Amino acid sequence: MVCKSGIDYSLYLVTDRQLLAGKDLLATVEQAIRGGVTLVQLREKELCTREFYHWAQRLKTVTDTYGIPLIINDRADIALAVDADGLHVGQEDMPLSVARQILGTEKIIGVSVSSVEEALAAQAGGADYLGVGAIFATATKRDADSVSLPGLQRIKEQTRLPVVAIGGIQAANVRRVMETGVDGAAVVSAVIAASDPYGAALTLTRRIKEC
Amino acid sequence: MVCKSGIDYSLYLVTDRQLLAGKDLLATVEQAIRGGVTLVQLREKELCTREFYHWAQRLKTVTDTYGIPLIINDRADIALAVDADGLHVGQEDMPLSVARQILGTEKIIGVSVSSVEEALAAQAGGADYLGVGAIFATATKRDADSVSLPGLQRIKEQTRLPVVAIGGIQAANVRRVMETGVDGAAVVSAVIAASDPYGAALTLTRRIKEC
Repeated sequence: MVCKSGIDYSLYLVTDRQLLAGKDLLATVEQAIRGGVTLVQLREKELCTREFYHWAQRLKTVTDTYGIPLIINDRADIALAVDADGLHVGQEDMPLSVARQILGTEKIIGVSVSSVEEALAAQAGGADYLGVGAIFATATKRDADSVSLPGLQRIKEQTRLPVVAIGGIQAANVRRVMETGVDGAAVVSAVIAASDPYGAALTLTRRIKEC
Repeated sequence: MVCKSGIDYSLYLVTDRQLLAGKDLLATVEQAIRGGVTLVQLREKELCTREFYHWAQRLKTVTDTYGIPLIINDRADIALAVDADGLHVGQEDMPLSVARQILGTEKIIGVSVSSVEEALAAQAGGADYLGVGAIFATATKRDADSVSLPGLQRIKEQTRLPVVAIGGIQAANVRRVMETGVDGAAVVSAVIAASDPYGAALTLTRRIKEC
């Protein structure tokens, strides 16, 4: 169990098995962690519950080995089943208040927001961090609302929670994102689709640390 | 909260919103309960978590009004979120042992099985009842394994749990099902797709009680 306070949100990896292009998910995540990823979210929208559970179990052994928090997207039952460190909910997932009731106060709960209003509501509702996006156009989540860099900065300035930016973030644009003052950058394809996930994570980590 | 012992499994309704043909889900379930349905399972495979949660909440107000147990298909998080009476898991859902750990001993957990081996495993694992099928061909769940009436009878005879048969059960064949000695018949289209869900449930109830 990772302690909830003092979590390093700086390089937040969100999985997407569709983007692996033949690579192994567990090996990819492990290389990414060795390259500097500080937190991993397992996101699965197509799997049956049993397969989701099995992937979460296996991923947990990897994140536990490196002492990295594992966050489960959407599914509080999977988070409980593998004793994950937390849950990430979007606006179409379980309401934050209900998720908190199910998971208790010790688990991390992150909420996807795309406006100051949603951010303040999530903060008031007891979220532990905010996922804000999509910052840049992304093929991973075509239906996502978009948030400009100034919009991202406003959300960071008007809330007191850690803010992780998401959506189309790559080595080439991560500095512009971090310069808004946010606590971290979430990446999907920049690491998952990379032929060298370790190198991709390492480059991102260096650029983030320079900010 | 419905007491776990002494549950009447005789006419078990499984929802399917696709079969409503314009009818309202809540009104359909309410009429079915008035017609004799003794237990309701909310089964949703296509909804996002938030919508599933909202339907479960609304259905719970109906089942609570009539003191009928509400079982949630597959999703332990939704079962917890609405404090449903139980969870039904298939062989592709969460393993029974994990579901039990999440839900605790007071909740009903049913398991879909299609062989004596699966039935005995579910019994040993602490299931509260068995859903056995598909007994007859069904358009609702095309990928289901099939179980003959003698196969159903064998499962009932070789286990000590309540057995609910499922798959293509209608007024015309429910007697043959109940004559195997099972504790109940689960229906989907026979009630959900009926133009008169009350009448359909009433006819099924009478035929079940005659056995």
